[in-house]
Amino acid sequence: MTRVNGGGRPAVVLLSGGMDSAVVLALAIRDNWFPCALTISYGQRHSVEIAAARRLAAAFGVDRHLVLDFDLTPIGGSALTADIPVPKRPRAPGEDPVPPTYVPARNTIFLSLATAWAEVLGSRDIFIGVSAVDSAGYPDCSRDFVLSFERLASVGTRASCAAPPFRVHAPLLELDKSATVRLGLELGVDFSNTWSCYDPMIDGTPCGCCDACRLRSRGFESAGVHDPVFSLETPK
Amino acid sequence: MTRVNGGGRPAVVLLSGGMDSAVVLALAIRDNWFPCALTISYGQRHSVEIAAARRLAAAFGVDRHLVLDFDLTPIGGSALTADIPVPKRPRAPGEDPVPPTYVPARNTIFLSLATAWAEVLGSRDIFIGVSAVDSAGYPDCSRDFVLSFERLASVGTRASCAAPPFRVHAPLLELDKSATVRLGLELGVDFSNTWSCYDPMIDGTPCGCCDACRLRSRGFESAGVHDPVFSLETPK
Repeated sequence: MTRVNGGGRPAVVLLSGGMDSAVVLALAIRDNWFPCALTISYGQRHSVEIAAARRLAAAFGVDRHLVLDFDLTPIGGSALTADIPVPKRPRAPGEDPVPPTYVPARNTIFLSLATAWAEVLGSRDIFIGVSAVDSAGYPDCSRDFVLSFERLASVGTRASCAAPPFRVHAPLLELDKSATVRLGLELGVDFSNTWSCYDPMIDGTPCGCCDACRLRSRGFESAGVHDPVFSLETPK
Repeated sequence: MTRVNGGGRPAVVLLSGGMDSAVVLALAIRDNWFPCALTISYGQRHSVEIAAARRLAAAFGVDRHLVLDFDLTPIGGSALTADIPVPKRPRAPGEDPVPPTYVPARNTIFLSLATAWAEVLGSRDIFIGVSAVDSAGYPDCSRDFVLSFERLASVGTRASCAAPPFRVHAPLLELDKSATVRLGLELGVDFSNTWSCYDPMIDGTPCGCCDACRLRSRGFESAGVHDPVFSLETPK
Protein backbone atom coordinates (compact mmCIF):
# COMPACT_ATOMS: atom_id res chain seq x y z
CA MET A 1 0.00 0.00 0.00
CA THR A 2 1.11 3.57 -0.79
CA ARG A 3 2.59 5.30 2.23
CA VAL A 4 4.04 8.76 2.78
CA ASN A 5 7.72 8.90 1.90
CA GLY A 6 8.28 12.29 3.48
CA GLY A 7 10.08 13.90 0.56
CA GLY A 8 7.31 15.90 -1.07
CA ARG A 9 5.93 19.40 -0.76
CA PRO A 10 3.22 19.87 1.87
CA ALA A 11 -0.44 19.84 0.85
CA VAL A 12 -3.53 19.88 3.04
CA VAL A 13 -5.76 16.88 2.36
CA LEU A 14 -9.33 17.08 3.66
CA LEU A 15 -9.92 13.64 5.16
CA SER A 16 -13.49 12.94 6.26
CA GLY A 17 -13.03 9.21 6.77
CA GLY A 18 -15.20 8.38 3.75
CA MET A 19 -14.08 6.43 0.71
CA ASP A 20 -13.57 9.46 -1.53
CA SER A 21 -11.16 11.30 0.75
CA ALA A 22 -9.30 8.02 1.37
CA VAL A 23 -8.68 7.67 -2.37
CA VAL A 24 -7.67 11.33 -2.63
CA LEU A 25 -5.16 10.85 0.17
CA ALA A 26 -3.72 7.84 -1.66
CA LEU A 27 -3.47 9.89 -4.86
CA ALA A 28 -1.69 12.77 -3.10
CA ILE A 29 0.81 10.31 -1.67
CA ARG A 30 1.32 8.57 -5.01
CA ASP A 31 2.03 11.96 -6.58
CA ASN A 32 4.71 12.67 -3.98
CA TRP A 33 2.99 15.30 -1.90
CA PHE A 34 3.63 15.42 1.83
CA PRO A 35 0.04 15.13 3.00
CA CYS A 36 -1.15 17.09 6.03
CA ALA A 37 -4.54 15.55 6.73
CA LEU A 38 -7.35 17.72 8.09
CA THR A 39 -10.46 16.20 9.66
CA ILE A 40 -13.32 18.28 11.05
CA SER A 41 -15.45 17.06 13.91
CA TYR A 42 -18.50 19.24 13.25
CA GLY A 43 -21.11 17.52 15.34
CA GLN A 44 -22.03 15.20 12.48
CA ARG A 45 -24.57 12.46 13.20
CA HIS A 46 -22.07 9.91 11.86
CA SER A 47 -19.18 11.03 14.03
CA VAL A 48 -17.93 7.45 13.69
CA GLU A 49 -16.30 8.68 10.45
CA ILE A 50 -13.70 10.54 12.53
CA ALA A 51 -12.39 7.22 13.86
CA ALA A 52 -12.21 6.05 10.24
CA ALA A 53 -10.17 9.16 9.36
CA ARG A 54 -7.74 8.31 12.17
CA ARG A 55 -7.42 4.71 10.94
CA LEU A 56 -6.76 5.93 7.40
CA ALA A 57 -4.13 8.47 8.50
CA ALA A 58 -2.37 5.76 10.51
CA ALA A 59 -2.57 3.20 7.71
CA PHE A 60 -1.03 5.63 5.21
CA GLY A 61 1.69 6.69 7.64
CA VAL A 62 0.50 10.32 7.69
CA ASP A 63 2.60 12.26 10.21
CA ARG A 64 0.50 15.43 10.32
CA HIS A 65 -3.17 14.76 11.05
CA LEU A 66 -5.11 17.65 12.55
CA VAL A 67 -8.58 16.88 13.91
CA LEU A 68 -10.41 20.15 14.58
CA ASP A 69 -13.52 20.53 16.71
CA PHE A 70 -15.83 22.92 14.86
CA ASP A 71 -19.31 22.28 16.10
CA LEU A 72 -21.83 23.26 13.43
CA THR A 73 -24.87 22.11 15.40
CA PRO A 74 -25.62 25.66 16.68
CA ILE A 75 -26.13 26.55 13.00
CA GLY A 76 -27.94 23.31 12.20
CA GLY A 77 -30.16 23.20 9.12
CA SER A 78 -29.14 19.70 8.03
CA ALA A 79 -30.12 16.12 8.79
CA LEU A 80 -26.46 15.61 9.77
CA THR A 81 -26.32 18.44 12.32
CA ALA A 82 -29.90 18.89 13.55
CA ASP A 83 -32.92 16.84 14.53
CA ILE A 84 -34.03 16.30 10.92
CA PRO A 85 -34.56 12.75 9.62
CA VAL A 86 -32.05 11.26 7.18
CA PRO A 87 -33.99 10.25 4.01
CA LYS A 88 -34.01 6.49 3.46
CA ARG A 89 -35.19 6.37 -0.14
CA PRO A 90 -34.15 8.03 -3.41
CA ARG A 91 -35.65 11.46 -4.03
CA ALA A 92 -38.78 11.51 -6.16
CA PRO A 93 -39.06 13.76 -9.23
CA GLY A 94 -40.13 17.25 -8.22
CA GLU A 95 -38.56 17.03 -4.77
CA ASP A 96 -35.96 19.59 -3.65
CA PRO A 97 -32.82 18.82 -5.69
CA VAL A 98 -30.71 19.56 -2.60
CA PRO A 99 -31.35 16.80 -0.03
CA PRO A 100 -31.78 17.41 3.72
CA THR A 101 -28.35 15.87 4.36
CA TYR A 102 -26.72 18.87 2.69
CA VAL A 103 -24.84 20.73 5.43
CA PRO A 104 -25.06 24.47 4.66
CA ALA A 105 -21.75 25.74 3.25
CA ARG A 106 -19.87 22.76 4.66
CA ASN A 107 -17.28 22.44 1.93
CA THR A 108 -16.78 26.21 1.95
CA ILE A 109 -16.10 26.06 5.68
CA PHE A 110 -13.81 23.04 5.31
CA LEU A 111 -11.86 24.59 2.43
CA SER A 112 -11.45 27.84 4.43
CA LEU A 113 -9.96 25.91 7.31
CA ALA A 114 -7.74 23.99 4.90
CA THR A 115 -6.63 27.31 3.41
CA ALA A 116 -5.78 28.69 6.85
CA TRP A 117 -3.71 25.63 7.73
CA ALA A 118 -2.03 25.61 4.31
CA GLU A 119 -0.93 29.21 4.89
CA VAL A 120 0.65 28.25 8.19
CA LEU A 121 2.35 25.24 6.59
CA GLY A 122 3.68 27.37 3.72
CA SER A 123 1.57 25.42 1.25
CA ARG A 124 -0.76 26.57 -1.52
CA ASP A 125 -2.21 23.16 -2.28
CA ILE A 126 -5.40 21.61 -0.98
CA PHE A 127 -6.93 18.26 -1.88
CA ILE A 128 -10.65 17.55 -1.61
CA GLY A 129 -12.62 14.44 -2.58
CA VAL A 130 -15.68 16.02 -4.15
CA SER A 131 -17.37 14.39 -7.13
CA ALA A 132 -19.69 16.35 -9.40
CA VAL A 133 -21.02 13.05 -10.77
CA ASP A 134 -22.00 11.21 -7.58
CA SER A 135 -22.62 14.00 -5.10
CA ALA A 136 -26.19 13.29 -3.94
CA GLY A 137 -27.16 16.72 -5.27
CA TYR A 138 -24.86 18.86 -3.12
CA PRO A 139 -24.14 22.29 -4.61
CA ASP A 140 -20.67 22.45 -3.03
CA CYS A 141 -19.28 19.61 -5.15
CA SER A 142 -19.19 21.25 -8.59
CA ARG A 143 -16.28 22.32 -10.77
CA ASP A 144 -17.57 25.87 -10.60
CA PHE A 145 -17.45 25.72 -6.80
CA VAL A 146 -13.90 24.36 -6.77
CA LEU A 147 -12.65 26.98 -9.23
CA SER A 148 -14.41 29.77 -7.35
CA PHE A 149 -12.81 28.71 -4.11
CA GLU A 150 -9.39 28.53 -5.74
CA ARG A 151 -9.79 32.12 -6.89
CA LEU A 152 -11.08 33.27 -3.50
CA ALA A 153 -8.15 31.68 -1.65
CA SER A 154 -5.71 33.27 -4.06
CA VAL A 155 -7.04 36.81 -3.60
CA GLY A 156 -7.88 36.60 0.13
CA THR A 157 -4.63 35.31 1.62
CA ARG A 158 -0.88 35.98 1.52
CA ALA A 159 -1.06 34.46 -1.97
CA SER A 160 -2.48 37.81 -3.11
CA CYS A 161 0.92 39.41 -2.37
CA ALA A 162 3.20 36.72 -3.80
CA ALA A 163 2.77 33.79 -6.18
CA PRO A 164 1.97 30.97 -6.53
CA PRO A 165 -1.83 31.10 -6.33
CA PHE A 166 -3.80 28.48 -4.40
CA ARG A 167 -4.71 25.28 -6.12
CA VAL A 168 -7.66 23.13 -5.04
CA HIS A 169 -7.03 19.62 -6.32
CA ALA A 170 -10.26 17.70 -6.83
CA PRO A 171 -9.10 14.58 -8.66
CA LEU A 172 -12.43 12.75 -8.28
CA LEU A 173 -14.50 15.59 -9.72
CA GLU A 174 -15.45 13.70 -12.87
CA LEU A 175 -15.41 10.18 -11.44
CA ASP A 176 -18.41 8.17 -10.37
CA LYS A 177 -18.23 5.97 -7.29
CA SER A 178 -17.45 2.87 -9.32
CA ALA A 179 -14.38 4.50 -10.87
CA THR A 180 -13.36 5.78 -7.44
CA VAL A 181 -13.54 2.25 -5.99
CA ARG A 182 -11.41 0.85 -8.82
CA LEU A 183 -8.88 3.68 -8.50
CA GLY A 184 -8.69 3.16 -4.74
CA LEU A 185 -8.04 -0.56 -5.15
CA GLU A 186 -5.27 0.16 -7.68
CA LEU A 187 -3.68 2.48 -5.11
CA GLY A 188 -4.00 -0.11 -2.36
CA VAL A 189 -6.65 1.70 -0.32
CA ASP A 190 -8.03 -0.56 2.40
CA PHE A 191 -11.72 0.37 2.25
CA SER A 192 -12.39 -1.43 5.51
CA ASN A 193 -10.86 1.66 7.14
CA THR A 194 -13.50 3.96 5.60
CA TRP A 195 -17.02 4.89 6.68
CA SER A 196 -19.88 6.33 4.62
CA CYS A 197 -23.29 5.82 6.30
CA TYR A 198 -24.97 9.00 7.57
CA ASP A 199 -27.20 7.22 10.06
CA PRO A 200 -25.53 4.20 11.64
CA MET A 201 -27.71 1.52 13.26
CA ILE A 202 -27.70 1.07 17.00
CA ASP A 203 -25.38 -1.93 16.60
CA GLY A 204 -22.85 0.22 14.74
CA THR A 205 -23.53 -1.13 11.25
CA PRO A 206 -24.41 1.08 8.24
CA CYS A 207 -28.14 1.62 7.68
CA GLY A 208 -27.86 0.51 4.04
CA CYS A 209 -30.49 2.88 2.71
CA CYS A 210 -29.33 6.49 3.18
CA ASP A 211 -27.88 8.35 0.17
CA ALA A 212 -24.32 7.67 1.34
CA CYS A 213 -24.96 3.93 1.69
CA ARG A 214 -26.71 3.75 -1.66
CA LEU A 215 -23.98 5.65 -3.50
CA ARG A 216 -21.35 3.47 -1.85
CA SER A 217 -23.02 0.14 -2.53
CA ARG A 218 -23.74 1.14 -6.13
CA GLY A 219 -20.06 2.02 -6.53
CA PHE A 220 -18.83 -1.31 -5.22
CA GLU A 221 -21.45 -3.24 -7.16
CA SER A 222 -20.65 -1.53 -10.47
CA ALA A 223 -16.96 -2.13 -9.86
CA GLY A 224 -17.76 -5.80 -9.21
CA VAL A 225 -16.05 -5.65 -5.84
CA HIS A 226 -17.19 -6.71 -2.38
CA ASP A 227 -17.44 -3.83 0.13
CA PRO A 228 -15.50 -4.89 3.21
CA VAL A 229 -17.61 -2.61 5.43
CA PHE A 230 -21.05 -3.46 4.19
CA SER A 231 -22.88 -4.90 1.27
CA LEU A 232 -26.64 -5.10 0.88
CA GLU A 233 -26.20 -8.72 -0.23
CA THR A 234 -24.05 -9.76 2.69
CA PRO A 235 -24.81 -7.74 5.82
CA LYS A 236 -22.25 -8.29 8.56
CA MET B 1 -30.03 55.45 18.70
CA THR B 2 -31.07 53.18 15.84
CA ARG B 3 -32.65 49.94 17.07
CA VAL B 4 -34.06 46.91 15.29
CA ASN B 5 -37.71 47.40 14.38
CA GLY B 6 -38.28 43.76 13.47
CA GLY B 7 -39.93 44.34 10.12
CA GLY B 8 -37.07 43.76 7.71
CA ARG B 9 -35.65 40.81 5.82
CA PRO B 10 -33.03 38.78 7.68
CA ALA B 11 -29.34 39.38 7.05
CA VAL B 12 -26.34 37.94 8.85
CA VAL B 13 -24.12 40.67 10.28
CA LEU B 14 -20.61 39.67 11.31
CA LEU B 15 -20.13 41.42 14.64
CA SER B 16 -16.63 41.24 16.09
CA GLY B 17 -17.15 43.85 18.79
CA GLY B 18 -14.88 46.34 17.04
CA MET B 19 -15.90 49.79 15.84
CA ASP B 20 -16.28 48.81 12.17
CA SER B 21 -18.74 46.00 12.72
CA ALA B 22 -20.68 48.20 15.17
CA VAL B 23 -21.15 50.80 12.43
CA VAL B 24 -22.10 48.12 9.90
CA LEU B 25 -24.73 46.77 12.30
CA ALA B 26 -26.14 50.29 12.69
CA LEU B 27 -26.24 50.68 8.89
CA ALA B 28 -28.04 47.35 8.41
CA ILE B 29 -30.63 48.42 10.97
CA ARG B 30 -31.02 51.86 9.41
CA ASP B 31 -31.64 50.20 6.06
CA ASN B 32 -34.40 48.06 7.54
CA TRP B 33 -32.73 44.68 7.59
CA PHE B 34 -33.52 42.28 10.40
CA PRO B 35 -29.95 41.73 11.65
CA CYS B 36 -28.87 38.30 12.84
CA ALA B 37 -25.53 39.02 14.47
CA LEU B 38 -22.75 36.43 14.30
CA THR B 39 -19.72 36.60 16.59
CA ILE B 40 -16.89 34.07 16.51
CA SER B 41 -14.90 33.23 19.58
CA TYR B 42 -11.80 31.89 17.81
CA GLY B 43 -9.29 31.89 20.63
CA GLN B 44 -8.29 35.48 19.88
CA ARG B 45 -5.82 37.15 22.23
CA HIS B 46 -8.31 40.02 22.66
CA SER B 47 -11.27 37.83 23.58
CA VAL B 48 -12.55 40.86 25.48
CA GLU B 49 -14.02 41.94 22.13
CA ILE B 50 -16.68 39.22 22.50
CA ALA B 51 -18.09 41.00 25.56
CA ALA B 52 -18.14 44.16 23.44
CA ALA B 53 -20.11 42.32 20.75
CA ARG B 54 -22.65 41.25 23.36
CA ARG B 55 -22.99 44.83 24.63
CA LEU B 56 -23.49 46.11 21.07
CA ALA B 57 -26.12 43.48 20.26
CA ALA B 58 -27.99 44.36 23.45
CA ALA B 59 -27.72 48.11 22.86
CA PHE B 60 -29.12 47.79 19.32
CA GLY B 61 -31.92 45.47 20.47
CA VAL B 62 -30.69 42.59 18.28
CA ASP B 63 -32.85 39.53 18.96
CA ARG B 64 -30.70 36.96 17.16
CA HIS B 65 -27.08 36.97 18.29
CA LEU B 66 -25.16 33.74 17.74
CA VAL B 67 -21.76 33.46 19.42
CA LEU B 68 -19.92 30.47 18.00
CA ASP B 69 -16.91 28.80 19.59
CA PHE B 70 -14.52 28.01 16.75
CA ASP B 71 -11.06 27.72 18.19
CA LEU B 72 -8.43 28.59 15.58
CA THR B 73 -5.48 28.21 17.95
CA PRO B 74 -4.74 24.63 16.78
CA ILE B 75 -4.07 26.23 13.36
CA GLY B 76 -2.27 29.24 14.82
CA GLY B 77 0.07 31.20 12.57
CA SER B 78 -0.96 34.64 13.86
CA ALA B 79 -0.06 36.96 16.72
CA LEU B 80 -3.75 36.80 17.66
CA THR B 81 -3.95 32.99 17.90
CA ALA B 82 -0.42 31.83 18.70
CA ASP B 83 2.53 32.78 20.87
CA ILE B 84 3.78 35.43 18.42
CA PRO B 85 4.31 39.03 19.65
CA VAL B 86 1.87 41.75 18.57
CA PRO B 87 3.91 44.49 16.80
CA LYS B 88 3.90 47.77 18.71
CA ARG B 89 5.22 50.08 16.01
CA PRO B 90 4.32 50.84 12.38
CA ARG B 91 5.90 48.52 9.83
CA ALA B 92 9.10 49.76 8.25
CA PRO B 93 9.55 49.92 4.47
CA GLY B 94 10.63 46.54 3.13
CA GLU B 95 8.91 44.57 5.90
CA ASP B 96 6.32 41.90 5.07
CA PRO B 97 3.25 43.84 3.82
CA VAL B 98 1.04 41.36 5.71
CA PRO B 99 1.52 41.90 9.44
CA PRO B 100 1.83 39.08 12.02
CA THR B 101 -1.66 39.94 13.34
CA TYR B 102 -3.18 38.64 10.09
CA VAL B 103 -5.13 35.51 11.02
CA PRO B 104 -4.83 33.07 8.11
CA ALA B 105 -8.05 32.99 6.09
CA ARG B 106 -10.03 34.46 8.96
CA ASN B 107 -12.52 36.45 6.93
CA THR B 108 -12.97 33.49 4.58
CA ILE B 109 -13.79 31.28 7.56
CA PHE B 110 -16.11 33.91 9.07
CA LEU B 111 -17.93 34.52 5.79
CA SER B 112 -18.37 30.75 5.30
CA LEU B 113 -20.00 30.48 8.69
CA ALA B 114 -22.15 33.51 7.92
CA THR B 115 -23.16 31.86 4.64
CA ALA B 116 -24.12 28.66 6.44
CA TRP B 117 -26.25 30.52 8.95
CA ALA B 118 -27.80 32.69 6.22
CA GLU B 119 -28.88 29.53 4.38
CA VAL B 120 -30.60 28.25 7.51
CA LEU B 121 -32.28 31.63 8.06
CA GLY B 122 -33.48 31.76 4.44
CA SER B 123 -31.29 34.80 3.80
CA ARG B 124 -28.83 35.57 1.01
CA ASP B 125 -27.41 38.71 2.61
CA ILE B 126 -24.29 39.07 4.71
CA PHE B 127 -22.77 42.23 6.16
CA ILE B 128 -19.08 42.56 6.96
CA GLY B 129 -17.11 45.58 8.20
CA VAL B 130 -13.96 45.27 6.12
CA SER B 131 -12.19 48.39 4.87
CA ALA B 132 -9.77 48.23 1.97
CA VAL B 133 -8.42 51.64 2.99
CA ASP B 134 -7.60 51.10 6.67
CA SER B 135 -7.06 47.36 6.90
CA ALA B 136 -3.55 47.14 8.39
CA GLY B 137 -2.47 45.27 5.25
CA TYR B 138 -4.80 42.28 5.51
CA PRO B 139 -5.42 40.55 2.18
CA ASP B 140 -8.94 39.48 3.18
CA CYS B 141 -10.29 43.04 3.24
CA SER B 142 -10.22 43.90 -0.48
CA ARG B 143 -13.03 44.46 -2.94
CA ASP B 144 -11.71 41.56 -4.99
CA PHE B 145 -11.97 39.30 -1.93
CA VAL B 146 -15.54 40.40 -1.19
CA LEU B 147 -16.66 39.91 -4.80
CA SER B 148 -14.92 36.52 -5.00
CA PHE B 149 -16.68 35.36 -1.86
CA GLU B 150 -20.02 36.57 -3.18
CA ARG B 151 -19.52 34.46 -6.28
CA LEU B 152 -18.36 31.43 -4.29
CA ALA B 153 -21.38 31.56 -1.97
CA SER B 154 -23.70 31.87 -4.95
CA VAL B 155 -22.34 28.79 -6.73
CA GLY B 156 -21.65 26.61 -3.67
CA THR B 157 -24.97 26.74 -1.82
CA ARG B 158 -28.70 26.32 -2.47
CA ALA B 159 -28.41 29.69 -4.24
CA SER B 160 -26.89 27.76 -7.15
CA CYS B 161 -30.31 26.10 -7.70
CA ALA B 162 -32.56 29.12 -7.24
CA ALA B 163 -32.09 32.89 -7.25
CA PRO B 164 -31.30 35.30 -5.74
CA PRO B 165 -27.52 35.02 -5.51
CA PHE B 166 -25.67 35.84 -2.30
CA ARG B 167 -24.72 39.41 -1.61
CA VAL B 168 -21.85 40.38 0.68
CA HIS B 169 -22.48 43.93 1.85
CA ALA B 170 -19.25 45.71 2.75
CA PRO B 171 -20.40 49.30 3.23
CA LEU B 172 -17.11 50.44 4.79
CA LEU B 173 -14.94 49.08 1.98
CA GLU B 174 -13.91 52.54 0.72
CA LEU B 175 -14.06 54.39 4.04
CA ASP B 176 -11.12 55.25 6.24
CA LYS B 177 -11.45 55.07 10.02
CA SER B 178 -12.20 58.77 10.32
CA ALA B 179 -15.19 58.49 7.97
CA THR B 180 -16.31 55.38 9.84
CA VAL B 181 -16.24 57.24 13.16
CA ARG B 182 -18.28 60.11 11.72
CA LEU B 183 -20.78 57.73 10.13
CA GLY B 184 -21.12 55.80 13.38
CA LEU B 185 -21.81 58.97 15.34
CA GLU B 186 -24.47 60.02 12.82
CA LEU B 187 -26.12 56.65 13.32
CA GLY B 188 -25.94 56.94 17.10
CA VAL B 189 -23.34 54.22 17.67
CA ASP B 190 -22.10 54.28 21.26
CA PHE B 191 -18.41 53.60 20.70
CA SER B 192 -17.89 52.97 24.40
CA ASN B 193 -19.43 49.57 23.68
CA THR B 194 -16.70 48.69 21.15
CA TRP B 195 -13.22 47.23 21.56
CA SER B 196 -10.26 47.37 19.17
CA CYS B 197 -6.93 46.68 20.93
CA TYR B 198 -5.26 43.38 20.01
CA ASP B 199 -3.16 43.19 23.14
CA PRO B 200 -4.93 44.59 26.20
CA MET B 201 -2.85 45.64 29.22
CA ILE B 202 -3.01 43.66 32.43
CA ASP B 203 -5.34 46.30 33.89
CA GLY B 204 -7.78 45.81 30.99
CA THR B 205 -6.96 49.03 29.13
CA PRO B 206 -5.95 49.18 25.45
CA CYS B 207 -2.17 49.06 24.81
CA GLY B 208 -2.34 52.19 22.64
CA CYS B 209 0.36 51.13 20.22
CA CYS B 210 -0.75 48.01 18.31
CA ASP B 211 -2.07 48.44 14.74
CA ALA B 212 -5.68 48.29 15.94
CA CYS B 213 -5.11 50.99 18.57
CA ARG B 214 -3.22 53.21 16.12
CA LEU B 215 -5.87 52.90 13.41
CA ARG B 216 -8.59 53.61 15.94
CA SER B 217 -6.93 56.62 17.55
CA ARG B 218 -6.05 58.08 14.13
CA GLY B 219 -9.71 57.66 13.14
CA PHE B 220 -11.04 59.47 16.19
CA GLU B 221 -8.36 62.17 15.97
CA SER B 222 -9.03 62.90 12.29
CA ALA B 223 -12.75 63.03 13.00
CA GLY B 224 -12.03 65.49 15.82
CA VAL B 225 -13.85 63.30 18.31
CA HIS B 226 -12.85 61.94 21.71
CA ASP B 227 -12.66 58.14 21.87
CA PRO B 228 -14.73 57.09 24.89
CA VAL B 229 -12.67 53.90 25.27
CA PHE B 230 -9.20 55.30 24.93
CA SER B 231 -7.27 58.22 23.62
CA LEU B 232 -3.49 58.57 23.57
CA GLU B 233 -3.91 62.11 24.86
CA THR B 234 -6.23 61.24 27.72
CA PRO B 235 -5.58 57.73 28.99
CA LYS B 236 -8.26 56.50 31.35
